[in-house]
Amino acid sequence: MTIDRTARQACQASTVLAAASAEQKNQALAAIRAALQAESAAIITANKADLEQAQRENLAAPLLKRLKFDKAKIDEACAGLDSLMTLEDPVGKTLAATELDAGLELYKVTCPIGVIGVIFESRPDALVQISSLCLKSGNAVLLKGGSEAARTNRILAETIARAAPTAGLPDGWLGHLETRADVAKMLELDRDIDLIIPRGSNEFVRHIMDNTRIPVMGHADGICHVYVDAAAEIEMAVNLAVDSKCQYVAVCNATETLLVHQDIAATFLPKLKTAMDAKGVELRGCERTRQSIDCACADERDWKTEYLDAILSIRVVDSLEAAIEHINTYGSGHTDAIVTGDRQAAMLFMDRVDAADVFWNASTRFADGFRFGLGAEVGISTSKIHARGPVGMEGLLIYKWRLIGQGHIVADYAAGNKKFSHKTLNKAYGI
Amino acid sequence: MTIDRTARQACQASTVLAAASAEQKNQALAAIRAALQAESAAIITANKADLEQAQRENLAAPLLKRLKFDKAKIDEACAGLDSLMTLEDPVGKTLAATELDAGLELYKVTCPIGVIGVIFESRPDALVQISSLCLKSGNAVLLKGGSEAARTNRILAETIARAAPTAGLPDGWLGHLETRADVAKMLELDRDIDLIIPRGSNEFVRHIMDNTRIPVMGHADGICHVYVDAAAEIEMAVNLAVDSKCQYVAVCNATETLLVHQDIAATFLPKLKTAMDAKGVELRGCERTRQSIDCACADERDWKTEYLDAILSIRVVDSLEAAIEHINTYGSGHTDAIVTGDRQAAMLFMDRVDAADVFWNASTRFADGFRFGLGAEVGISTSKIHARGPVGMEGLLIYKWRLIGQGHIVADYAAGNKKFSHKTLNKAYGI
Repeated sequence: MTIDRTARQACQASTVLAAASAEQKNQALAAIRAALQAESAAIITANKADLEQAQRENLAAPLLKRLKFDKAKIDEACAGLDSLMTLEDPVGKTLAATELDAGLELYKVTCPIGVIGVIFESRPDALVQISSLCLKSGNAVLLKGGSEAARTNRILAETIARAAPTAGLPDGWLGHLETRADVAKMLELDRDIDLIIPRGSNEFVRHIMDNTRIPVMGHADGICHVYVDAAAEIEMAVNLAVDSKCQYVAVCNATETLLVHQDIAATFLPKLKTAMDAKGVELRGCERTRQSIDCACADERDWKTEYLDAILSIRVVDSLEAAIEHINTYGSGHTDAIVTGDRQAAMLFMDRVDAADVFWNASTRFADGFRFGLGAEVGISTSKIHARGPVGMEGLLIYKWRLIGQGHIVADYAAGNKKFSHKTLNKAYGI
Repeated sequence: MTIDRTARQACQASTVLAAASAEQKNQALAAIRAALQAESAAIITANKADLEQAQRENLAAPLLKRLKFDKAKIDEACAGLDSLMTLEDPVGKTLAATELDAGLELYKVTCPIGVIGVIFESRPDALVQISSLCLKSGNAVLLKGGSEAARTNRILAETIARAAPTAGLPDGWLGHLETRADVAKMLELDRDIDLIIPRGSNEFVRHIMDNTRIPVMGHADGICHVYVDAAAEIEMAVNLAVDSKCQYVAVCNATETLLVHQDIAATFLPKLKTAMDAKGVELRGCERTRQSIDCACADERDWKTEYLDAILSIRVVDSLEAAIEHINTYGSGHTDAIVTGDRQAAMLFMDRVDAADVFWNASTRFADGFRFGLGAEVGISTSKIHARGPVGMEGLLIYKWRLIGQGHIVADYAAGNKKFSHKTLNKAYGI
């Protein structure tokens, strides 16, 4: 089937899915769970073939580990489905209710967005997680996984797609894309696809953002900062810098640049260097940094670089304001932290730094849907509208305005025969 | 000043404005109010010059009326500012609070989006209303009004821009654009501008949507439907159709297509025709419509056309499902209504029609921020993310995640030394 057709079917399915009851959706999740168990031997076989090919092609060990989808992973995915079934239905929640006039009631009610296009890298677990989150939130979904996991993804997608209709949900609610050409085509289908969620490398996400008119929820760069204020406690600052930089260097919420207030630089930097040397981190400092410690020279390019590696750039700044300005100039609006004992400084930093996540005395590595307690994470967004930072299932929802009248016409209000009451109603939508 | 520079300044001002207190913003609104009164003679003079030129150029009477900005309009704008000052500050509201662990608290807190680019047609009142809404919500703004109101808009923009800094807000928070070339340039500045709100004709809005990477909040087409169900009360259906079509034909929430269930067509359509004939509305019907009434012939193009005029297309459909499918195929996701006495039919219609506004037994003309009780209307959005339908000030807001720790590091949780508690906190952010 062509991608146009797949997307059209998903769009048609989405309006039916939007009206599905919580019970129907949970029954579909249960059917998916049962189908994954029933197909587990075939899934494991497909995954073994993917793994063998990846080994032949010398895929790096961490990628091989992410690619593996054995019985334990299937059980884990099923546990995820169980927990999703226990969650309240996010669709149909009344966000506001207003009586416009006697017998004319307006309700702002959550609903699915429609059709979500998700492009993700090799982990097959992501396919199960994303498709089930879309289903629970009433969205149809088009999925494209990494090509290393092609066989695993294919059988997973087919199993999941087929299981939901046995619970009465519409066919075509899940579309599976297999090639890059499919993705390129998908990016053109702004009539049928409402939101694209790309998960992967910077270049990949930026490529998606630059090549579609469909709204994109995600993040390209993650240039995160830790600012060590004049009033920072030195030991805490060293620990937070080490954790923010080193706890896992290859991820978007790892810190790339450390900003240090000039008043604390001479005391703090030598201790930082000792700790970073012990972790094998290469330091690149500005001129003033190099007055306190011996390290490589940082320039303008460093402030703009997401290393995703054991490298840290360091800049000494004159003031809190200078730190904020540096971050708002070079940052990516992802996650920035201040280390300080000064509440006023922390407040100003958190108010003025324009980022999804602003932290006080905490590691930038906490910026994550699981750590935030959001349950499953749909992605991390550095966009300024809709959803920002780690995004849970609520990022897959929007609302509709539902107005219930008894034949009310606007002419009566325009003529002054009737007047709006605009009274807040304390009740949920239900007709 | 070049538009790049204006946008850069607005972006810099926006981070300061984001941290402004409710009191500061209200003082700035009071300063704007005072400045508008102090400058009223000059504003009226500028407006007279715009009106004279418009008359010389034979601008249509309704446009001249919209262009007029006299003492009464200034007083009305000032009353709008008074009412905005009494509103609660929308920034800094805690949307969620979670204890991640002892001493590690996460708050999801509302904040301004940043820099809003607004392009609107001739009404100068819109300039005052939009700039004050942006200020109250902590956003910087770039404004481009209609060229017929160039002199009025210039003095209003200068007066408003200058007044706010007297209350301590940053210079450059309001940028005024004067030419189409300025607008074209603005659409390229996705680094500094976070959201574009275009208000104007379909072609204009579509042009904006097609020519920028900045998110756009608005609507191009408004192809609204009224569906008269088999279980509709005939008199109510005629009244609703007349109000939805005729109460004001030139607006986006006026109905363009009437769908009629086949079981009621023979009874309903002759009565509809009598009422529409009395209003001078041209009817264009499908084959089955023409079996019941004498009217012009409608084809596929009619279902896709926003007449914005006294023309109504009519299609007889087999079923409720067929009506829903017609709307989801040809509609613009703006506003669609069902007329029926059948609750089940109404529920299905409101669940499955994919539109910002879904109405039961009410005129499509109610789709409006004022009628919805939202206060000032920022615009009407047919987008599927962020904000949908009539958008009030909340459409100018997003949120930040604010995490407050005491030196917490992720390594402790990764090693299993500490565990997340993820307890919901019943308190508002404040440090």
